[in-house]
Amino acid sequence: MSTSIDSSLTETQITAEDQVPKIELLTWTDDEYDGVIVEMDKPMDSATFLSILRASISHWKQLGKKGVWIKLPIYLASLVEALVQEGFWYHHAERKYLMLVYWIPASADTIPSNATHRVGVGSFVVNEKREVLVVQEKTGHFQGSGVWKFPTGVVDQGEDICAAAVREVKEETGVDAEFLEVLAFRQSHMSFFEKSDLFFVCLLRPLSSDIQIQELEIVAAKWMPFDEYAAQPIMEKYELMKYINNIYLAKVDGQYSGFTPVSTAPNFSKKSVYLYLNAGGLKKSNSL
Amino acid sequence: MSTSIDSSLTETQITAEDQVPKIELLTWTDDEYDGVIVEMDKPMDSATFLSILRASISHWKQLGKKGVWIKLPIYLASLVEALVQEGFWYHHAERKYLMLVYWIPASADTIPSNATHRVGVGSFVVNEKREVLVVQEKTGHFQGSGVWKFPTGVVDQGEDICAAAVREVKEETGVDAEFLEVLAFRQSHMSFFEKSDLFFVCLLRPLSSDIQIQELEIVAAKWMPFDEYAAQPIMEKYELMKYINNIYLAKVDGQYSGFTPVSTAPNFSKKSVYLYLNAGGLKKSNSL
Repeated sequence: MSTSIDSSLTETQITAEDQVPKIELLTWTDDEYDGVIVEMDKPMDSATFLSILRASISHWKQLGKKGVWIKLPIYLASLVEALVQEGFWYHHAERKYLMLVYWIPASADTIPSNATHRVGVGSFVVNEKREVLVVQEKTGHFQGSGVWKFPTGVVDQGEDICAAAVREVKEETGVDAEFLEVLAFRQSHMSFFEKSDLFFVCLLRPLSSDIQIQELEIVAAKWMPFDEYAAQPIMEKYELMKYINNIYLAKVDGQYSGFTPVSTAPNFSKKSVYLYLNAGGLKKSNSL
Repeated sequence: MSTSIDSSLTETQITAEDQVPKIELLTWTDDEYDGVIVEMDKPMDSATFLSILRASISHWKQLGKKGVWIKLPIYLASLVEALVQEGFWYHHAERKYLMLVYWIPASADTIPSNATHRVGVGSFVVNEKREVLVVQEKTGHFQGSGVWKFPTGVVDQGEDICAAAVREVKEETGVDAEFLEVLAFRQSHMSFFEKSDLFFVCLLRPLSSDIQIQELEIVAAKWMPFDEYAAQPIMEKYELMKYINNIYLAKVDGQYSGFTPVSTAPNFSKKSVYLYLNAGGLKKSNSL
């Protein structure tokens, strides 16, 4: 997907015979799975597009191609209908484009599925006095309830879980914090339209104590003694919160190990890849 | 989103004055964030749709509505262009529908982001003789390389990680297995188009031993002594695999605790929600 494409169109000679006119085809790049990827960027009318599309598919079929991916920017929305009429279906969409896909062979398609999960983080920040950094939110479940909760948020596109946990604390409370470990995570389904949700509860150590709240999302923030935090009536209603409290107590007790991030070799996008594991358990083993 | 809607159209009296004609509006349901959701299901021509859409937005504006969600089935692809012209943008798409969204107020939108992660599982199944269940795949990275790897796969929409790990083993090898724990997980980015990837490596205990391979994806499968498995030259190249081998040795050594799933109260979709945590560490704590 990183190849830059100057034009959506190219002229290709379909056969070697001199008398055959050149036929306009869509410009494509090959993917690793015998498929082709087309990034449309030039406006054209539906009828012209349809004839070029049909010629292209026929050409790709001769080449033994299977999947056809067409990335259509939102400003070419007028071409969606033609693609659907030709048998394309929707694969995924982002704000500014729609990805459509088509399967050439008669066999069942092996098109990989779309992203299925949203990822969230909760940041449990506790200082040396056993005070928890808590907030009251302007919107959401606990709005106006007086409940004090730890900061939570959504992991951005391309963001590491450990980075998101630190960012959310800084954004909501102004407090700098260091990521320690993932204490637990929760998987739930049908949380947002048909999508699932993975929520990672993280333990952080504060690096500063002064609080400056983000006025847009947060009503109030403070350092609250853990016992007072854990005694809030709301804890009885939320198993996740009760578990996190017990995990924190086991942690203080020296008995609990969560998962810490280990940076492994960068992948092809040159971003470092984190593996989260029980580093303490691994270290303790005699066999290594 | 669960409300059944018989028709995409409704007639609403905009004012109480007798002389004002009834204006056709799109049928909507309210969401919890001052937004409206429209599930289109009736074909109509673009011009008619556009005039009804404009009247509807004007009406919602009077009601103080903010976000407008329009779920457009793929058979109504002809209406995409009209929506985009009116300022709608793409939110997400699945095979059979496109979700478009619009923000009525002048303020910046607070539309939640789309799903960002695909989720995969790897199943490390080891029997009492310290043999690992391994496969050779027909496609992918290791195709034709002679590398023996543990079964891996993609978590289906709405599927629990612990269920997916068991399913993949059964599908690829015919072996029944019991889920024990998540040994580690990896987060990587830009793995598939712009999306990120969360890959959970799970430890399973086999409940049967006979192997029956799935011909479509798998070339061969067998039980392989752990030492032989771990001695494959490929291990040097893949930090993840080396880590998993060391984690397994620490596990045998009694030093390593992964995360086990604990079923918590069902959420509103009536599906049970799993919290994954270090259950052994929690149990050991004296403070509970």
